[in-house]
Amino acid sequence: MALPVETFFLRPDAQGTLQQQIQQMIAQGILSGRFQRGEKLPSTRKLAAHLGVSRITVTIAYTELLANDYLSSRGRSGYFVSDNAPAPPAFAPMAKVDDAIDWSRAIGQRFSGNGLSGKAQDWASYRYPFIYGQADPTLFDHANWRLCAVQALGQRDFTSMTTDYYDQDDPQLIEFIVRNILPRRGVSARPDQILITLGAQNALWLTAQVLLTQRRRAVLEDPCYPALSGILSQSRCHITPVRVDQDGLPPEAIPPDTDVIFTTPSHQCPTNATMPMDRRRALLARARALEALIVEDDYEFEMSFLKPASPALKSLDDEGRVIYVGSFSKSLFPGLRLGYLVGSEPFIREARALRASVLRHPPGHIQRTAAYFLSLGHYDAQIRRMGLALHERRRIMEGALEQHGLRVSGRGAYGGSSFWMRAPESVDSAQLAENLRARDVLFEPGHAFFIGDEKAKNYYRLAYSSIPAARINEGVGLIAQEIDRLR
Amino acid sequence: MALPVETFFLRPDAQGTLQQQIQQMIAQGILSGRFQRGEKLPSTRKLAAHLGVSRITVTIAYTELLANDYLSSRGRSGYFVSDNAPAPPAFAPMAKVDDAIDWSRAIGQRFSGNGLSGKAQDWASYRYPFIYGQADPTLFDHANWRLCAVQALGQRDFTSMTTDYYDQDDPQLIEFIVRNILPRRGVSARPDQILITLGAQNALWLTAQVLLTQRRRAVLEDPCYPALSGILSQSRCHITPVRVDQDGLPPEAIPPDTDVIFTTPSHQCPTNATMPMDRRRALLARARALEALIVEDDYEFEMSFLKPASPALKSLDDEGRVIYVGSFSKSLFPGLRLGYLVGSEPFIREARALRASVLRHPPGHIQRTAAYFLSLGHYDAQIRRMGLALHERRRIMEGALEQHGLRVSGRGAYGGSSFWMRAPESVDSAQLAENLRARDVLFEPGHAFFIGDEKAKNYYRLAYSSIPAARINEGVGLIAQEIDRLR
Repeated sequence: MALPVETFFLRPDAQGTLQQQIQQMIAQGILSGRFQRGEKLPSTRKLAAHLGVSRITVTIAYTELLANDYLSSRGRSGYFVSDNAPAPPAFAPMAKVDDAIDWSRAIGQRFSGNGLSGKAQDWASYRYPFIYGQADPTLFDHANWRLCAVQALGQRDFTSMTTDYYDQDDPQLIEFIVRNILPRRGVSARPDQILITLGAQNALWLTAQVLLTQRRRAVLEDPCYPALSGILSQSRCHITPVRVDQDGLPPEAIPPDTDVIFTTPSHQCPTNATMPMDRRRALLARARALEALIVEDDYEFEMSFLKPASPALKSLDDEGRVIYVGSFSKSLFPGLRLGYLVGSEPFIREARALRASVLRHPPGHIQRTAAYFLSLGHYDAQIRRMGLALHERRRIMEGALEQHGLRVSGRGAYGGSSFWMRAPESVDSAQLAENLRARDVLFEPGHAFFIGDEKAKNYYRLAYSSIPAARINEGVGLIAQEIDRLR
Repeated sequence: MALPVETFFLRPDAQGTLQQQIQQMIAQGILSGRFQRGEKLPSTRKLAAHLGVSRITVTIAYTELLANDYLSSRGRSGYFVSDNAPAPPAFAPMAKVDDAIDWSRAIGQRFSGNGLSGKAQDWASYRYPFIYGQADPTLFDHANWRLCAVQALGQRDFTSMTTDYYDQDDPQLIEFIVRNILPRRGVSARPDQILITLGAQNALWLTAQVLLTQRRRAVLEDPCYPALSGILSQSRCHITPVRVDQDGLPPEAIPPDTDVIFTTPSHQCPTNATMPMDRRRALLARARALEALIVEDDYEFEMSFLKPASPALKSLDDEGRVIYVGSFSKSLFPGLRLGYLVGSEPFIREARALRASVLRHPPGHIQRTAAYFLSLGHYDAQIRRMGLALHERRRIMEGALEQHGLRVSGRGAYGGSSFWMRAPESVDSAQLAENLRARDVLFEPGHAFFIGDEKAKNYYRLAYSSIPAARINEGVGLIAQEIDRLR
């Protein structure tokens, strides 16, 4: 009847506060049926002594479980598993399911092998993480994000957090994007020309579904953002890779039967090239002549700490020909999954309807928190602070790369957070990366970025968005050593 | 040089605290260029007097903007727009964009007209909202949700909130679903057999993409969940509607060339029928004979306040034939966008790869908050509390329906949150609903639920998940009046 105190133990890898760990442990015991209704729990004093925690911690945990009717108390008699506690399932679950289905036949369409699986989840454990696109806790304004999130959890914002928006977006977030973000890029848009998305990934995917069919042709920069080529491969449209040069995508190389051109003009991914103004006009003219659309992925424009970002390609578009993709993954954090699409209303309408079918809408709390963070000035403070830190890291890295004789292929003129590197011809950067993992160095080989027939094997990307300044030099040194060894 | 205090005004419809409104107002003025760098702001005393707020409120707002370098201070001279404040854009955005694109040609695939747009966003403003599927602030455990969200915003959970998971999920949430939710349904699953989704909408959409092609056939219950028929229409597969009876979907009516069967056995949507155990076995046998898969949408199982929910269909599946869809939209809130898919590993693998391509992963903070809410016992307390309140509302509604002579077609045996109603043959429930909106009554006509050739027009759904108990009787009375009038 009385549960022995020895039954209770805290897992060494548990997360959360001690009080929560205790609460979860007891809840789990009840839900699994190990602790039966009416059974008596150890006294707070005994359990505290057994677990090596303070008595008040146990008392608070017990009190919380009392409030949730997992436990009941009988005055001085102590705490018991409540009669109202959730019952473990009456039906014993199947111990084992033999899969008798022929999945090779049952699956109608395959999607695996798109390049996103198997990415290092443990990137943060590397001593020298030259990895691109992850957050850096030392750079992010965690305190103010938290305040904004708490604000968005409040009574006033209850509806925006909990309601089913169906196919609509948080009007406050849309408003800030229209009035304060797009104008910085020279873009003017109405609210019905904007769609909030689950990051740039979602924006690009929606765009590909709406614009491309198996009979249509897309142009991709080569090299390009691997997730984009994955999306387009899945759409089964015709793909023409066009090799970029030091100014980015050359308009004259775009074939005549092109329907959609995907480009990163401000900051080519991954070479960092910035497309000059006259080439941007030429690109628009070429698209006009072909009656093609342009999809501009303006990722990372906020990281223009060397010189101000050039206006977006879309700012030169007076026809509605350019569809603009924006993202908060770099200026805020990628786990937020927040981005936006800007385009003509007929296009946005279709993208919105598709988004509704796929997922309805991005979670309300996420949108409202971002709206607060943006409108209260924290976003700008964040960008400025990140810019300063990244500028310093870049300075150090440039020095280290030069000192160790590593060749930069594309450094970018206005900022960014990575270098596009070129190893000697004989060095396979995938082999280089694999060897260096054992030495706690993490970076991306360039292979996944190339899509044309000539896939160069000696390129790689070194980012400085997640590596502490103090380790850059050592990390670069290790890379240089390994390159020498492999040559 | 000194900004006149009259330039500052708070919008009457603004949201957030007074301090935030002031902060946003000033930030907006700076970002739009109305307030230039170096210009002097009114003193805190003057602005407070002008706005009719306390001086400390203005002071805190100024201090926050100081911290974000929107403002600078010069001792007793006062506050100025900082030289480091974000600059309004140097390039004037295009005033107007003439759309020169022929979108009827440019759009490759259309998705609009899927039934999700145009839904009432202002449902909460109706006095008698018999609307289904929205949150009710009086029933939700807001305080504890907030605590869990704050916990998930903490240092310890920074990585889970901010990291790019690529195609993975929060292991804590998966664990709770595996160990504590699925066993309640009699389902045993491994973590690699579970995928977190953006709600049931996303789960059903992913499933349809993976399993169905233009050559395959799906069976849908008739009537069924409108969003599901929208998803399947878009997939362009063959659809066979099968009329349900008082026990739900009849297995013998499923045609031989069926590939996938979509069903809601525990609680048929929208008729509320519960499929008896022998029919469930017959359904599995039929599927086995046809080598078809079954997709079980187990929505709302938590709302079994009349009698315990029967085990899920999947609990009887020893072959891996059943794919299970779960959602937190009803037990938590729909704006959360959180659900899950449970199925054999080959299927989950494809669904995961597709999800990664479409949106990567559901936001980390959302997943972690839910994991805390579930594991700390709040979820069970929430279910219990909602169950009590819904039970009471149901009792009142049953009485009101009887008193006013409204006919219930499907009331459900174990709980739920709605009645499936049948008006007299001559009454068109869409007309009924439209007429009643003017009288502040909101409910869903049944039309959208029917997919077969015979679309009955006199059914409608009355939910009690969002209407206060005290208004049910009046609301039902108004409906009865209008039905009499229309007859």
